[in-house]
Parts: sequence; C-alpha cells; structure tokens
Amino acid sequence: MNHKLACPIIAAPMAGGVSTPALAAAVSNAGGWGFLAGGYKTASAMQAEIEALRELTGAPFGVNLFVPGGESVDEGLLASYAERMRGEAQHYGVLPGEARYDDDEWERKLQVLMKLHVPVVSFTFGCPSPDIVKELQQAGSTVIVTVTTPEEAEVAVEAGADALCVQGGEAGGHQGSFGNALPDPEPIGLLVLLGQIRKAVSVPLIAAGGLMHGADVAAVLSAGACAAQLGTAFLLCPESGTHRVHRAALTDGRYSGTALTRAFTGRRARGLVNRFMNEYPDAPAAYPQLHHLTRPIRKAAGDKGDAEAMSLWAGQGYRLARELPASELVDVLLREAGEAIAQGAVRLPS
Amino acid sequence: MNHKLACPIIAAPMAGGVSTPALAAAVSNAGGWGFLAGGYKTASAMQAEIEALRELTGAPFGVNLFVPGGESVDEGLLASYAERMRGEAQHYGVLPGEARYDDDEWERKLQVLMKLHVPVVSFTFGCPSPDIVKELQQAGSTVIVTVTTPEEAEVAVEAGADALCVQGGEAGGHQGSFGNALPDPEPIGLLVLLGQIRKAVSVPLIAAGGLMHGADVAAVLSAGACAAQLGTAFLLCPESGTHRVHRAALTDGRYSGTALTRAFTGRRARGLVNRFMNEYPDAPAAYPQLHHLTRPIRKAAGDKGDAEAMSLWAGQGYRLARELPASELVDVLLREAGEAIAQGAVRLPS
Repeated sequence: MNHKLACPIIAAPMAGGVSTPALAAAVSNAGGWGFLAGGYKTASAMQAEIEALRELTGAPFGVNLFVPGGESVDEGLLASYAERMRGEAQHYGVLPGEARYDDDEWERKLQVLMKLHVPVVSFTFGCPSPDIVKELQQAGSTVIVTVTTPEEAEVAVEAGADALCVQGGEAGGHQGSFGNALPDPEPIGLLVLLGQIRKAVSVPLIAAGGLMHGADVAAVLSAGACAAQLGTAFLLCPESGTHRVHRAALTDGRYSGTALTRAFTGRRARGLVNRFMNEYPDAPAAYPQLHHLTRPIRKAAGDKGDAEAMSLWAGQGYRLARELPASELVDVLLREAGEAIAQGAVRLPS
Repeated sequence: MNHKLACPIIAAPMAGGVSTPALAAAVSNAGGWGFLAGGYKTASAMQAEIEALRELTGAPFGVNLFVPGGESVDEGLLASYAERMRGEAQHYGVLPGEARYDDDEWERKLQVLMKLHVPVVSFTFGCPSPDIVKELQQAGSTVIVTVTTPEEAEVAVEAGADALCVQGGEAGGHQGSFGNALPDPEPIGLLVLLGQIRKAVSVPLIAAGGLMHGADVAAVLSAGACAAQLGTAFLLCPESGTHRVHRAALTDGRYSGTALTRAFTGRRARGLVNRFMNEYPDAPAAYPQLHHLTRPIRKAAGDKGDAEAMSLWAGQGYRLARELPASELVDVLLREAGEAIAQGAVRLPS
C-alpha cells in the first residue's frame, strides 16, 4: 500500500467524461496518482480507457467504481418527477430518458478490473463485500472505499479495505455515502471527519473535499491523511474532459456558490447553484433513475451552451481552481505543500 | 500582533456562562490565549469578569463582543413564534421572556474595554466601524473580527482589523456572520474558507470551527492560519462554566449529531440536535428577540435536568472533546500538533 501511494497527490475519479486517460496519465507521469472513473460507461468502454491509459503511462493508477445500491424508491415521487421533466425535455427539444434502475455493469466491471490487475480500485456509494475486496487484493489491487461517516469507515475496514477515501461535505460531485435515504445527515467538514475516522480505524486515510491549493494538501497531511485527493482542482486542466460550458461556468463569476442537490441524479451531489437546482429542490432519492431520466436534458443543454440545466459539479473551493497542465499542477501543489507545512511548523512554539 | 499571539492555541469566547475567568486564566497561564465572552451580560458584569481574570493571570487575554445588528424583523413571524413558545414555557412552569431588541450595552462595553486596555478585542455578528477599531487600537488593543465569507473578510480588513477569526461551518454555537438574512448561505468548510480568505486578504488569520485535536491545530497552521481557536474542545474542562446537563449531553452518547438552528436565539447556531431544534425548524430570523424569548424556557429546562429544551451548543467534532484541566489540554494540543506536523512533513516527497 505505502509504496503505491508514495506521492500524496491523487487526481479524483470524476465520472461523466472528466477523468480522461490523458488526465490520469499526466498526473501519474508527474508522480501523482491518476484515476479513471468506471461509472456511467460500459465495462468494455472502461476496459478501453484502462488500455489507453496504459499506453500513456507505465506508472500506477486507480479506477473507481460505483457500488450499486438497489435502495427501494418511492415510485409515486419518481413518476411525478418524471412528469415534471417532460417540460424540461421539451424546452431543450429532446425526450426525457427512461427512469430505470441498472447496476452500471457491476459484475462485468469487477471482472475487467481483476483481469487487468489494476493497481488501485476505489469504490463509491457503498462497500463491496469482503469476498470482492479479497478477490481484488488477490489480483494485485489495493482497495480503497470512499466513506463520509465514522460508521461507514468501520464497515469498510471490516470488509478488508486497505485504505479509505475520507470525503468531507465540501467535496464537489456526488457524496459517496453508502445509503441514499432521507432525511440526509448533515455533511461533515473534512477536518472533523478525518479526526473522527482517525480515532475509529487505523488504515491509511486519503482526504478529499474542497482541497485546491498545496496549503490544503499540507493541512490534511498534518491532520493524519496519507494523501490528498483533489477533483475540482483538476477540472480546468487542458487534459480534463470538462465540458466547455462547465469550464466557463467555473471561471466567469456568474455563479455565487455551490450546494448539494439530488435534482440531476437522485443522489446528493455538490455543484454550482443554477436554475435546475433551484427549480427542483425536492427531487426524490432515486438513483440512478434520475441520472438516466435527466441525461438527455443535461446533454442537450450542454450542446446548446446553456449551463442552467447541466450538472456543474464543483467543490466549495472551486473559485481557486487553476488552469494549468495537470503535470504542472501536481508540481505546484507539491511545492506549495512543502512550503506551507514548513511555515506551519514555525508557528508552533519550539 | 505577533508577539501577542505567540501561542497558536486560543480558547474561544463562549457566551452564556461557559468562558469563565477561571477558564481564560488557566489557558493564558498555560501559554495559550484565554478569552472572555462579553455577550449576554451587562457592561458592569463584563468589567467584573475582566478584573477577576486579571487577579488570576498576568498573561494577555481577549474579550469578545457581539456587534448589534438591528436588522429588520418580520413582526408577524415573531409574534407567531412567541405564541408557540407559550406552550413550551407552560410545560416548564415559567413565562416566556419578552421578545425584545437590545444592543447588549454595546457603547458601554466598548468604553469598559478601552478604559481597561484589554489586550485583544474580538467581534462577532458584524464589523465595528473604522472609528471604533482605531479607538481600540489606540487604547492598546489588537482587534479581531470574526468572518464566515471572503466578502466579510474584505470588509473587516477595510475597517482596520488587525486579524480575522475565520469561522468554518463546522463551528459550534453561533455563526458569526455579519447579517442574519434568509435564505442562509451554505456554511463553508473551514479549510475552503481559509483558502479563499488567504487569497483575498493579507492580515493574520485565526482558524475556528470543529478543531478538537492537536492534529487539527497542525492542519490549520499548515493551511496558513497563525492560530487555532477551539471552543467545544474546552467545554468539558473543569474550569468551564458548561452546565452539567450540557456536559452530560456531550458525553453520554444520547445525541447522534449536530445541526444549525435559529430556534433558540433567532440567529443560526450549531448544537446537538434535540427535541426543541426538531420541533422549531422554521424559527424566524429575529435576533436577539428569540434569545430573550426562549431564555426562561432554556433556564427552566436546565434547572430540571431536561436537555431537550436547552441550547446544547457543540461543534461537529464534539465527540472528541476531552475532560482535562484547561492547562493540561493546552499542553496536550501543542504536543499533538508538533507530532502531527512533523509526521505530515514526512509524507511529502523530499
């Protein structure tokens, strides 16, 4: 584990086209940890991305999978939300998607990851069974589980996880919580969550949520994390697959902040507050049904250059994102982190 | 400023009887920064506390004041809330308090602080005028303003503040936001807020919100703060004036978490989620009217040992509070912080 996470900078897996093989390769080649997002694509597409990445780097990397939930869904609320989406779809000249459940090819993806001996496999939205964890480890993978509470951390460690990705409420995109039940627990700030989980378990912890600058990396390393996982910080890199409308929204000052919403996918995720989020504050807890339902609307909005119906995922610190090549960003973050931690140490009485 | 904040540990001012002169003295004598809370008492009572503290320590200390807001209040909502409080009051065998506005003897308190040449004066709920800041500085005080957004930070620096207390959304008790208007902005996590404000201004920053362990102190120093301000971490110290029912609630595992609420005072504050918070999620933005209105109810509940109608202020990290004498807690925090920052530095590639 430790030799595999020798660099404390991880580029977070960002599904929906952001985490390209080019981004992951640039980060891994710079000595960081590049990640591919296994979610929202077929097992074959994921395999093709892994193979493309291996053409670009010999350095280790990770792949993230969404754990299928299969939580029961309130069909009445779902139908009523689907009805409301008809107007949105019409506005953008498309049909709404089918609000269906699927497991995102879970079994097939696991088979691909084992077959390809992927160095690090991380999980979001739940904890894989101890058997799956063991099989992956036997195939040579380090297994990381994303957690948002101390209780989830304990479950993941009992299942055999090698390390945890501790995701604070500041994080952009989906909260990796195991369940999707309402009412939502209040999201916990990253430093508090790190402290609680550091006390509860003893596996290495990767800190995620709102980290933008090397000083933030220094902060979470000082707080006991073995590495910092940054997503939003990499959104503006040229290697990222971030949609041009999303890029513009992050930088042009039109948006005043972020919030958590279920409006786009039926699971809680943080993005820039736009019209769609404001209009559907009461979206039902129905994942991935809402993801499929709203997909054509989001795509059509993006094609038209309309940011108001796109999922503009962003962490709370998005204003500090820098438009730099990914390898340069890794270098800058490491240099800043070194300076920050040295300055921090000076502030303590000797 | 720097010589005055030579130790990076500050015991937060906690109004309502928690920050006793004994607590402030113990912290200051241990080389930290003790604070008195000037809010919710008369100017004479505040003066008596300062004099009592000076009997107990020759070391510097701080006093915090609430800045009066005088925001307009929806009288209809206030009257209807007052009506609902009649049942609560009856249940606890008291009369509700008068839902009145007052400025907490603002002018008189400023006069006392100037007359007594208090080393550090900090402000919450707003920014004092540049004239007041200057007068305090001329009286020998370092002036700190509590801020919760980068915009507030800029206002405070323009007013002449020597330093800012950067309060993350994780913090227990009141959010120090300048305004009290609805809808509330989403609270920002401490690390993100530090990063945003570090970029916006160049005065020293004190970090507050959810800090419980020396590793948290190390984290915020690495993130660029000159000091860490801890409140909840000191709640269980024997020198703290924390109500016995509040102490028990923090430690006996009955409560599952914290949330922000206006139910007790009309301003947003974080506490353990109890019946009162659950019952009045829609309390109006009317401060200090609701503070006065609910005061007899809270007091009677406390006298009866009933935690369900008390304001059980607590930061998100409250489970990690330790029952230690305050001087020992300062020592432990400094030792832990030194170890944590050294371990963090090792995690960076050399």
